[in-house]
Amino acid sequence: MTAAPELRIIPVTGLPEITRGADLAGLICGATELLDGDVVVVTQKVVSKAEGAVEPVDPSDPLSHKVIVERESVRVLRRRGELVISETRHGFVCANAGVDLSNVQAGTAALLPEDSDRSARRIRDGIRARSGVTVGVVVSDTFGRPWRRGVTDVAIGSAGVRPVLDLRGTNDAYGRELAVTEVAVVDEIAAAAELVMGKATGVPVAVVRGLDPAVLCDEPASVRDDLLRPAADDLFR
Amino acid sequence: MTAAPELRIIPVTGLPEITRGADLAGLICGATELLDGDVVVVTQKVVSKAEGAVEPVDPSDPLSHKVIVERESVRVLRRRGELVISETRHGFVCANAGVDLSNVQAGTAALLPEDSDRSARRIRDGIRARSGVTVGVVVSDTFGRPWRRGVTDVAIGSAGVRPVLDLRGTNDAYGRELAVTEVAVVDEIAAAAELVMGKATGVPVAVVRGLDPAVLCDEPASVRDDLLRPAADDLFR
Repeated sequence: MTAAPELRIIPVTGLPEITRGADLAGLICGATELLDGDVVVVTQKVVSKAEGAVEPVDPSDPLSHKVIVERESVRVLRRRGELVISETRHGFVCANAGVDLSNVQAGTAALLPEDSDRSARRIRDGIRARSGVTVGVVVSDTFGRPWRRGVTDVAIGSAGVRPVLDLRGTNDAYGRELAVTEVAVVDEIAAAAELVMGKATGVPVAVVRGLDPAVLCDEPASVRDDLLRPAADDLFR
Repeated sequence: MTAAPELRIIPVTGLPEITRGADLAGLICGATELLDGDVVVVTQKVVSKAEGAVEPVDPSDPLSHKVIVERESVRVLRRRGELVISETRHGFVCANAGVDLSNVQAGTAALLPEDSDRSARRIRDGIRARSGVTVGVVVSDTFGRPWRRGVTDVAIGSAGVRPVLDLRGTNDAYGRELAVTEVAVVDEIAAAAELVMGKATGVPVAVVRGLDPAVLCDEPASVRDDLLRPAADDLFR
């Protein structure tokens, strides 16, 4: 991997409120001009809304939220008070199974998309069909993590982007072979995009321009297959 | 937090090989033109080298590396084969206590800096003294994490940057108060910078330009005090 040139992280503003059935690819192409090699980062929230992965909850009854969280979980790792850290049926380990009450209409909860890699592929294909440009697409969500306070955005789906860049077998700057260096570039891309989105501002899409071409790929590659660590290999599950 | 404008991630190239006693602030000012509000991300490796936090190891004897790892650890969380996940004496939870054999001279290992927040402060002060600009500084390192494959860059020290942006009490795009939203911006900044550094290319410094001014601060704020989760609050320790 050669040193990338300067990177630009461009917020996509002016998108309308996203509702079920919204054509995200079309809306993105209408709001910004994309170039070959761009990576478009789309937050889970608008993907879930467009796909109708939204359910009613009773704001006065915390149990109605909890029932959805339990249903979306296949394995509970930890509980503390109202917080549940679980593995979702998609394989993500996160708080409250990714079921989220913020930035949705009052009285509703946004679930994770059924298959975020498929969601990313659809947006990528839609952008190519509409604009003729070949981009990568990352679907991002906001997760906590052990040991460190605060949340960061990570990737829950990708298309046209290599989730993990495998540098094993390449040499460091001293010519010594890099032993264990698989870089989760797709999570770094999601984190970078969050810096222009904020949490309170309704900017659900950003474009990352100038990435090393080694990050992009045309063969199938997915967060689920390539980034999620199998439970058997995991020291903390 | 209002939507940030476009962000630029600029690799700083042309730095010489860093050795003990190197004046990192001076070298960075000589290699690139900085602006007020920039955040300069410096990898742990060059900070450790400049501070002399490097020790000899015998490449033919794995035990010589292991002895340093054990000495730098205060609590071992997991072991598997040669891999140790431990809490370092600084409070970081990471593999092999952050003791690293790549991108250093053969026969040496780079340790974590004694106090990475202080390292960041020194670089920040040095840049201000030399160039008159007020920047933030983040010292970054490459850590793995549970549940997801691959490594990402995170912050191990900061100065002039708020490690965690506390959005509690602000409203989402629907006017509903955001409940638990503390964003670990300093880790997102480190991750973004990695995208222009690569692992094999010897680009140890990057500039992040265009960040929301809410991220910057002049009061003392540190990764150690603000970002590391106390063991008692941690569900995975």
